[in-house]
Amino acid sequence: MTTSPARSPRPRVVIIGCGFGGLEAARALRGAALDVTLIDKTNHHLFQPLLYQVATAGLSAPAIAAPIRHLFRQQSNVTTLLGEVTRIDVAARTVHQKDGGHASEPLHYDHLIVAAGATHSYFGQDAWATHAPGLKTLDDAFEVRRRILLAFEAAEKEPDPARRADWLNFVVVGAGPTGVEMAGTLAEIARHTLPGEFRHIDPASAKIILLEGGTRVLQAMPEALSQRAKEQLEKLGVEVRLHARVTAIDGDGLVVESPSGAGSESANSYQIKSKCIVWAAGVAASPLGRHLAEATGCATDRAGRVAVAPDLSLPGHPEISVIGDLAAAKSHVPGQEPTAVPGVSPGAKQMGRAVAANILRRLSGQATQPFRYRDYGNLATIGRNSAVVDLTSPAGPVRFSGYFAWLFWLFAHVYFLIGFRNRLVVLLDWAWAYWSFARYARVVTGIEGQPSVTAVPAVKADARP
Amino acid sequence: MTTSPARSPRPRVVIIGCGFGGLEAARALRGAALDVTLIDKTNHHLFQPLLYQVATAGLSAPAIAAPIRHLFRQQSNVTTLLGEVTRIDVAARTVHQKDGGHASEPLHYDHLIVAAGATHSYFGQDAWATHAPGLKTLDDAFEVRRRILLAFEAAEKEPDPARRADWLNFVVVGAGPTGVEMAGTLAEIARHTLPGEFRHIDPASAKIILLEGGTRVLQAMPEALSQRAKEQLEKLGVEVRLHARVTAIDGDGLVVESPSGAGSESANSYQIKSKCIVWAAGVAASPLGRHLAEATGCATDRAGRVAVAPDLSLPGHPEISVIGDLAAAKSHVPGQEPTAVPGVSPGAKQMGRAVAANILRRLSGQATQPFRYRDYGNLATIGRNSAVVDLTSPAGPVRFSGYFAWLFWLFAHVYFLIGFRNRLVVLLDWAWAYWSFARYARVVTGIEGQPSVTAVPAVKADARP
Repeated sequence: MTTSPARSPRPRVVIIGCGFGGLEAARALRGAALDVTLIDKTNHHLFQPLLYQVATAGLSAPAIAAPIRHLFRQQSNVTTLLGEVTRIDVAARTVHQKDGGHASEPLHYDHLIVAAGATHSYFGQDAWATHAPGLKTLDDAFEVRRRILLAFEAAEKEPDPARRADWLNFVVVGAGPTGVEMAGTLAEIARHTLPGEFRHIDPASAKIILLEGGTRVLQAMPEALSQRAKEQLEKLGVEVRLHARVTAIDGDGLVVESPSGAGSESANSYQIKSKCIVWAAGVAASPLGRHLAEATGCATDRAGRVAVAPDLSLPGHPEISVIGDLAAAKSHVPGQEPTAVPGVSPGAKQMGRAVAANILRRLSGQATQPFRYRDYGNLATIGRNSAVVDLTSPAGPVRFSGYFAWLFWLFAHVYFLIGFRNRLVVLLDWAWAYWSFARYARVVTGIEGQPSVTAVPAVKADARP
Repeated sequence: MTTSPARSPRPRVVIIGCGFGGLEAARALRGAALDVTLIDKTNHHLFQPLLYQVATAGLSAPAIAAPIRHLFRQQSNVTTLLGEVTRIDVAARTVHQKDGGHASEPLHYDHLIVAAGATHSYFGQDAWATHAPGLKTLDDAFEVRRRILLAFEAAEKEPDPARRADWLNFVVVGAGPTGVEMAGTLAEIARHTLPGEFRHIDPASAKIILLEGGTRVLQAMPEALSQRAKEQLEKLGVEVRLHARVTAIDGDGLVVESPSGAGSESANSYQIKSKCIVWAAGVAASPLGRHLAEATGCATDRAGRVAVAPDLSLPGHPEISVIGDLAAAKSHVPGQEPTAVPGVSPGAKQMGRAVAANILRRLSGQATQPFRYRDYGNLATIGRNSAVVDLTSPAGPVRFSGYFAWLFWLFAHVYFLIGFRNRLVVLLDWAWAYWSFARYARVVTGIEGQPSVTAVPAVKADARP
């Protein structure tokens, strides 16, 4: 420690990122004799599991986003900063933010928690991003919402039947939880929300295609539930294509490669025309992971996640912890082999609480403890009335699907929403949407200059069928 | 009428714009033996009187915006088109839309209702728009919300006290209803919503300045109510400056000219530093007004509004009606001098119903009727618990202000919100905001690349007071 007069006399914990991990870590430090500085690129904590609802116009953005400084208004040891960390100086123990083109004054830390999360990965094909936006931030969700709604508008204006059909092809790439939710909800929009509102097209004729490179949907689930999920998706009108590898994406659609038949070795390559592609396939850790690896020599895995020590610290740097989607963490149960922690929000939250406890232990001179992940199970929703649930209980797994699984999923998600007001609003929004089939957040802004609109061809309003 | 095979056999009414006037006209044509095509630049009808609530983070966008085609899903003679009209060919009776850089196929009309509304006017100083956004669209509201919230964030990061104070100067230009609402709500945010959430600044120290070039606020109101409104604003913490003419606006703030003293002829020019200026001063009619004037030789007023015939048609063109903010319309009461119709939503709605009725009269060979505006009064809210009400009744005007005026304003606005669901959500949002002082829609997106953020200077998180 230097003796700079500007430095606080209490130890300073800097937390980078206010997702589930960072939020939980800051909360767990409530009342501790230290100062917490929480830096995030946005002004809000985002409830990412419901982001697909914003993208599909079922919820408004404020319903799933809470202002960070509002969440911590009563926790006086937390200072919230809006900013983007570009560099960590592990020798000087400072973090550096991007700000207005100038280098900010570095921010000193005694303990650093890096919880910067993940973003989409296009497997090196960054040009695909323009044509197939992913779903990680509110801006992403608005972009996807805009493309979905404007595709139906463009189809309504398109006199050529072939081009009209192209506008009504919706493709979701990747059948993890987000891909499955997106595809299921798109089918619901096309079959239930929009019919009756158009005069030249039948929205129910829209094709929703879910592409998955692997052998089944929801690969984190037991095989029987994957099978149930696939059946429920198909019942909703989603065309599920497994073993389908995307090899190209451009403004006209995508090229898919799949085995030409059972047992066949050769691959079959074909094009799917689409103007609205949603990317739910790959995830890459924040670039801060590789930055830490370069600075400290620690290892990262293929997705750029940092290999952390059992107590979630950086090997050789007990003052730095890495948690959430940025950490390749393991769960440690005495007498058992360590197992990988899945990239789900309960994992991030548990890591946040664990590193906060370890920081308090270090400050009082105690040894840190290895992280142990408690797996309460796995939920995924598919669409109206459909979900799959795989719960872990002392008596063995509890698995169910269908309507009750959907109710269970709904209440679990509303329960975990941050802030009572949001819970109430989300429940009301869903109750309304459920009974009316309406989706109230069908608002598109920033239409001016959107490629989706400028690409809309000539109108022929008189060409009524 | 030509005999083009693509033309519908029923008369076609084209309505440009789905604000209050266009919406009401289309609704009033329900069940009529004609086809209505409703063209709007956006996909939603916007309840503009509550737009300032979106700008000040009190409401989410979907709460005050309803998808146009959803509103007309059960009115089968209405076709909704998302598009921007660039040209009207009055000889050929066609409207032309901007679309993807190509000219669209022209859309034929038998009757045309032009309800394209108004936008802000900077009195020829268009460069001011960058520094002082107005409030007409949802995109405007998001931009204003972003600037307000990010100004507080920037102040929190600013170590220099003088520059910090600049970030906390909020200026609203124009003391009409929107300016008064904005200033009152900004004061509420600074004094009630944000305190306790920042560690380096006191949000309550923010200065809210309301500039008005005229002699009083809310000039459409009786003088006594203007005086009451000014007192209520000042009680809320707003600094009201009358006789204050803005002569320049740039990135640092604005220059104001005001008389140097009572009875003085000379003017006093001074600067107000501010990073967050909201423009609520000038309104100009849509460019389609001047376009119609050039095409038909009709007159427009200084604000670009079209001088319409008593039945709201264009002189010499009974098949074209102009309504709402685009029309310089007069109210005709038999035996009285015609009076100007104020630019308020009840005026636009009444005009919409009147032209729909006149179109039906023309189709059945009857004479059209002159427009008569029914003035039910005038409401303006100022902030929490404060409003002024001026009602017209057969027994003479009913005027009141304060808490009951505010309740009256609130229920009147919620009542007129389009769509039951929105009403319920808005009431709940307000009930919650009222009791908690919280504003839940404090979500800023698109931070990346915003000038407001890139202008934030170096952080000094250790400089805690």
